[in-house]
Amino acid sequence: MSNYFLSVSAAVDFITNNLVAVGVPQSDALIVANLMVQSDLAGADGHGIFRLPAYIKRIRAGGINLHPNIRREREQGAVTLIDGDNALGHLVMARAVETAIEKVKEYSVCWVGSHHGNHSGAASVYVRKIAEAGYIGIYMAVGNANHMAPWGGIDLLLSTNPIAIAVPAGDRPIVLLDIATTVAAYGKVKLAAQKGQMIPEGWMIDKKGNALTDSSRASEGSLLPIGGHKGYGLALMISLLAGTLNNAAVGKETIDFNAHHDLITNTGQAIIALDPSAFGDPKEFIRRVGKVVDDIKKSSKLPGIDNIHIPGEGADKLAKERRLNGIPISQELLNALNDCARECGVVPLNL
Amino acid sequence: MSNYFLSVSAAVDFITNNLVAVGVPQSDALIVANLMVQSDLAGADGHGIFRLPAYIKRIRAGGINLHPNIRREREQGAVTLIDGDNALGHLVMARAVETAIEKVKEYSVCWVGSHHGNHSGAASVYVRKIAEAGYIGIYMAVGNANHMAPWGGIDLLLSTNPIAIAVPAGDRPIVLLDIATTVAAYGKVKLAAQKGQMIPEGWMIDKKGNALTDSSRASEGSLLPIGGHKGYGLALMISLLAGTLNNAAVGKETIDFNAHHDLITNTGQAIIALDPSAFGDPKEFIRRVGKVVDDIKKSSKLPGIDNIHIPGEGADKLAKERRLNGIPISQELLNALNDCARECGVVPLNL
Repeated sequence: MSNYFLSVSAAVDFITNNLVAVGVPQSDALIVANLMVQSDLAGADGHGIFRLPAYIKRIRAGGINLHPNIRREREQGAVTLIDGDNALGHLVMARAVETAIEKVKEYSVCWVGSHHGNHSGAASVYVRKIAEAGYIGIYMAVGNANHMAPWGGIDLLLSTNPIAIAVPAGDRPIVLLDIATTVAAYGKVKLAAQKGQMIPEGWMIDKKGNALTDSSRASEGSLLPIGGHKGYGLALMISLLAGTLNNAAVGKETIDFNAHHDLITNTGQAIIALDPSAFGDPKEFIRRVGKVVDDIKKSSKLPGIDNIHIPGEGADKLAKERRLNGIPISQELLNALNDCARECGVVPLNL
Repeated sequence: MSNYFLSVSAAVDFITNNLVAVGVPQSDALIVANLMVQSDLAGADGHGIFRLPAYIKRIRAGGINLHPNIRREREQGAVTLIDGDNALGHLVMARAVETAIEKVKEYSVCWVGSHHGNHSGAASVYVRKIAEAGYIGIYMAVGNANHMAPWGGIDLLLSTNPIAIAVPAGDRPIVLLDIATTVAAYGKVKLAAQKGQMIPEGWMIDKKGNALTDSSRASEGSLLPIGGHKGYGLALMISLLAGTLNNAAVGKETIDFNAHHDLITNTGQAIIALDPSAFGDPKEFIRRVGKVVDDIKKSSKLPGIDNIHIPGEGADKLAKERRLNGIPISQELLNALNDCARECGVVPLNL
């Protein structure tokens, strides 16, 4: 699949050049490029450079404000509401993380909500930044396309609304969970469809409630939530906390960002940052986290399993590998990126 | 199953009298009794009056501090750490909720962690109180017995760690999710075992990783997390946030409260409260929540489904019914409660 490898610096340059070519100010383009590559480093391949052509398409269609006034619209105690002014999502989330780290220093816990953001890559990128600063980070977002029906329903009123949580762990990899509230991400279904593969039972149902395993019929079905009604409830709660509370688009208001490149998505996101030092010596906390991690790593395994994974461990390993060897790029992705570059008048990748 | 009905006031009196008989101060007993009954009202039948005999057993065994000094051990910005001093769990959580409501007024968001608590009934009880006060409530807890192995493992290092989230909704029922991170609660497995029933595939696996459906063999197996590795990750993160961070028992330190009545459980819990008014007019927020709820309620249903449930709706309906008609009590539960009463020298229930 992955015939090529693209170094991190080349990826950042390429993304920056393409964004600048369509009118993104250089300094903003550099921020976005660096954050996009973080998704690739973490192994969220569908959320990094892969998205560049779609972002460019949206910018060209006028769906993004290239000269936004991202601002703290409201500030009350330890809560901030950010108006993203329809900027590129990464810029809004960069500001949200910056705000959260500033406020957590003052209040020990803070909540930063945002509206009028856009797709900003993998959720893990932002909680990782908070954990790297020594804090616990929690992130929730309303997805930019509805692929899930309420439990018992047919109408696609919910997205795969992700939640990510990061806990600092000292010398160990940051303990970092980044999950969609659906069994499978829609990207995996689309990938299967591209390859003409079936999808496993349990990923989707059709409008009669039967298992949908033919990926080419995905548009007729609904993704299934994790734990049935439980995942539906979680997705709904994330809609309310990251969307409705911030006056962002939710449910029927959601704009399918793959179908409408010119319409404002009004993406809603929320970040919580928490300071372990409020609970005692943070070194002691990190020691205790290490013990929990070690106990799990060393515990007995099921037959055929040779390693029990701690959330975040795989992404950490992958990031080290990819910093060294580059980001794997398939032939299809290389073609898509170079088509995009040619349209932008940017030098194509030569891998 | 439910041959009898017990009025709320009779339940409160009965619980109070039993607790007082084993040495709980009258005012504390009344607080605990009222909170226990809230679990019954919400339909969390395994978390309300059903638990009284177990609580009494623990008190008699010396496993509870009847004259605790529940105190704010640390206070830093919008974060409070409460030392429950091994009090009855309901008292610790009552204090945590009270603290959260006080602090959210000042900071618009707050985080109240606690350690040295005990089992305190259904998670929903506490987030409901926060939502009734007009705030958004989030609750996480480390369960008091490990029934789940890490994903890919065998050793029971995790509990069913619940998370509950409540959002005020004006005249509509509070939108309230209260879920364990396992597919099924262990109580449901025990209930099946009592009745000699099989449990569905997907609830548990045995030590070889095969589906365990014979409920009488439950102690040999592991509950399965919702969404496989995703639910494992969520349960682990709740362990860290509600347990490790508060210096409460987690993993190997967890005391099985059903097996050891005299040992201190050091239960860890965490509450977040958030003020919708920080984001704008709270009435507008409630109007928007109502729209999301209505859109889901009115959406198309799968064949054979006549109602799409909103989390919290069922509990709200049940609470109204049970306030009117009483809490359903099975013959087995009545016997257990009256055995307990006789041991305590309290007048048995006469239903």
